[in-house]
Amino acid sequence: MTGRLYVLGVGPGDPELMTLKSVRILRQVATVFVPKGREEGSSLALSIVQKAVDLSDKEIIESYFPMRKTRGSVAQEDLDAQWQDTVKAVMERLNSGIDVAFITLGDPTIYSTFFYLHDRLIDLNPDISIELVPGVSSITAAAARSGTYLGIADDRVAILPANYTGDLRDVLMQFETVVLMKVSKVFSNIVSTLRDVNLLDKAVYVARAGMEDEQVVRDLREVREEDLNYFSIVIVRK
Amino acid sequence: MTGRLYVLGVGPGDPELMTLKSVRILRQVATVFVPKGREEGSSLALSIVQKAVDLSDKEIIESYFPMRKTRGSVAQEDLDAQWQDTVKAVMERLNSGIDVAFITLGDPTIYSTFFYLHDRLIDLNPDISIELVPGVSSITAAAARSGTYLGIADDRVAILPANYTGDLRDVLMQFETVVLMKVSKVFSNIVSTLRDVNLLDKAVYVARAGMEDEQVVRDLREVREEDLNYFSIVIVRK
Repeated sequence: MTGRLYVLGVGPGDPELMTLKSVRILRQVATVFVPKGREEGSSLALSIVQKAVDLSDKEIIESYFPMRKTRGSVAQEDLDAQWQDTVKAVMERLNSGIDVAFITLGDPTIYSTFFYLHDRLIDLNPDISIELVPGVSSITAAAARSGTYLGIADDRVAILPANYTGDLRDVLMQFETVVLMKVSKVFSNIVSTLRDVNLLDKAVYVARAGMEDEQVVRDLREVREEDLNYFSIVIVRK
Repeated sequence: MTGRLYVLGVGPGDPELMTLKSVRILRQVATVFVPKGREEGSSLALSIVQKAVDLSDKEIIESYFPMRKTRGSVAQEDLDAQWQDTVKAVMERLNSGIDVAFITLGDPTIYSTFFYLHDRLIDLNPDISIELVPGVSSITAAAARSGTYLGIADDRVAILPANYTGDLRDVLMQFETVVLMKVSKVFSNIVSTLRDVNLLDKAVYVARAGMEDEQVVRDLREVREEDLNYFSIVIVRK
């Protein structure tokens, strides 16, 4: 009997936003894999889980992942080596019949690090048992914390990560709601684009939704450069 | 002291996908408002909650909402009257200092019925205390159940409800991932559009994600007309 790999979305930051299912699974598994990046948020997923579940008798394996990565921005060979270490550690345990959990901030299907591992695991063993357990996404958490909605009725919603190129204006015209992810690096561009298309007053900035140091700023002109946070989202609702 | 209105996302269907927070709040409040539509799923939110929390000592108020509504499709006066009843019932309890919960399937910020109430409540009392508690969305649950992701790295994601007009092709060209909500009424149109743009093999159909009678169909040609379900989603990933 081989073990099962559970990929758990642990929600946006508030331990109470973990699901009953992820808490139950974390209590059951022997080993917890924690993605670890260079950013301050790297061990955030672990700190969330530790507030809700006693992990003292578990094996904790921290794996380095460059969280801010976009395609082609990091030397592929380095990444491959790092991922291979994690793949190997996961496989050893599964092959010994040990169930393991891989935790991700928010939800595993939205911009999580897990899917960089996924194909490598499947390549090694196509019969590997993987269960993705959805979690509360930082996107809906940001909407909730700012008291707005992403969509009602026949609204259309676009989600764009930080590296959007010149077509932000087009998307703003086409969609009732536009969610801009990880805006800190390009914040001033966003503000000027929104001003140009007269949507600056329709935008809200939310950083670290659901965490203790959460920020909700309804006037983007008031967001100070030094406050800009990796876990920041702008929601534009027309 | 007036009471607080908690708007709780109870997740996509599996009671274990409720958050710790929504369970705690449901244990604390005296009254639970349940949106009730004409469709079969109308009391689904209540049945999810009942599997996780003992509601036997709570006041349960079912409020009629036409869940399939899109703007302008239902006589506005009828809706107004129905909503006013619920608004009144909520306000009476809050004014008596009673905390109440309004439960919504999935997440309250994504196509939930709550926001039809929200403005009416604020109109009556701008100081009303409302807390939106995010939940697991049916969108990420559908992605998880079909073993795919909605986005990694700099992918762009579009979410379109069923009433999309002629621009589905454009959106399919522009976005790496397109999520089509509540596809049952327009399913054959979707299939033919996807075939035209050569993306039929990149789509997956997921109905009732996380529920006992969940369906995941990887070849849209195999989805039978009679199986089409109100709670159905198509995810197209290029």
